[in-house]
Amino acid sequence: MVLTLHGLPMSTSTTRVMICLHEKALDFELIPVDLFSQENKQPAFLAKNPFGKVPVLQDGELTLFESRAINEYLAQKFKDSGHDLTRPENLSECATVKVWMEVESHQYEPAISPIVYQHFVAPLQGKAPEQTVIDQNLEKLGKVLDVYEARLSGTKYLAGDFYSLADLHHLPYTFYFMKTPWASLITDRAHVKAWWDDISSRPAFEKVAQGMTFGEK
Amino acid sequence: MVLTLHGLPMSTSTTRVMICLHEKALDFELIPVDLFSQENKQPAFLAKNPFGKVPVLQDGELTLFESRAINEYLAQKFKDSGHDLTRPENLSECATVKVWMEVESHQYEPAISPIVYQHFVAPLQGKAPEQTVIDQNLEKLGKVLDVYEARLSGTKYLAGDFYSLADLHHLPYTFYFMKTPWASLITDRAHVKAWWDDISSRPAFEKVAQGMTFGEK
Repeated sequence: MVLTLHGLPMSTSTTRVMICLHEKALDFELIPVDLFSQENKQPAFLAKNPFGKVPVLQDGELTLFESRAINEYLAQKFKDSGHDLTRPENLSECATVKVWMEVESHQYEPAISPIVYQHFVAPLQGKAPEQTVIDQNLEKLGKVLDVYEARLSGTKYLAGDFYSLADLHHLPYTFYFMKTPWASLITDRAHVKAWWDDISSRPAFEKVAQGMTFGEK
Repeated sequence: MVLTLHGLPMSTSTTRVMICLHEKALDFELIPVDLFSQENKQPAFLAKNPFGKVPVLQDGELTLFESRAINEYLAQKFKDSGHDLTRPENLSECATVKVWMEVESHQYEPAISPIVYQHFVAPLQGKAPEQTVIDQNLEKLGKVLDVYEARLSGTKYLAGDFYSLADLHHLPYTFYFMKTPWASLITDRAHVKAWWDDISSRPAFEKVAQGMTFGEK
């Protein structure tokens, strides 16, 4: 049975799952959701995700939403396929993966996403980017990256010397952030830069990055 | 070996873990962290959590932070003790628990926490609560609760007919929210109210709620 992913190849949440699907060497069908015509707010889509957000994964009878939850499901169900992303055989490593997944979710994304939003999305909506919002979040993001720099001086990846969902979940927003004028927040920190160069050059991500054209003319 | 939890019995994140520890019938020692003297920003604490936040769990050599990650670790390591909170034996139920844990994390808490913050924390810092922030988030929270009301009309708990981490993670913020003037957002929705009455009367939570005195004179 083919896995079905409802979403958009330029959306940060959809690509988070697409990268995972490629890392797990899984076949899937991407079904586009037309956000511009609000297809995601129509009853057919709301029956899949009552919050009206992409992506949604369908695996036979099972319908799942929330990209990070979908990825944990894929890592668990297909643990013997592709790359091991959650280290289920080692309780302590597995817990450390979850800790740094939560760091991405509660420290990193809340700082980086408003910057990406102001820079790329606001102009498309006819609004000027709010520089005070950008500045506040650049400061927040810098503090988070200081912790990452120290962490990555001791281990190659966030949860240890192995690539995991904790790293993968950073890819979509950081990819867009690297196209803003503030990419030096990443490149000025030697260990963060080496980590970014490593995780962004994995073949599973390179496939997905080709479709991440949001904000391009 | 006794589990050690560093945190405060009135903090939402610390109590999230304490409730889980009680549900799993685990002994633990709570070591208070003096946030008012910024003990959490001192080197000894930053060595445990570089983000300087409570709680931190120590289990022998393993040090973990981020309350939701800690709870997943406890549920996994001690799966045969106390209440089953993550349904590891059933892939589809386990995935559904994770979906609704992510909903709490990305839909519910971002709406409810600013309300609790403005009502209880701002006055302690000598600031007037910002009513526009409260109003915007009451509207957001109402929309999330509309989805919960529909969901809970079909299943007793968020992930299915079983109490799980997905429900448990809602307890700390909702407990404080119920002490605000806007508790009717919960009580006016019949299924949400029944769910709240059920999960907030579990003995594991009642023990923890006794110490949740933040904002009391």
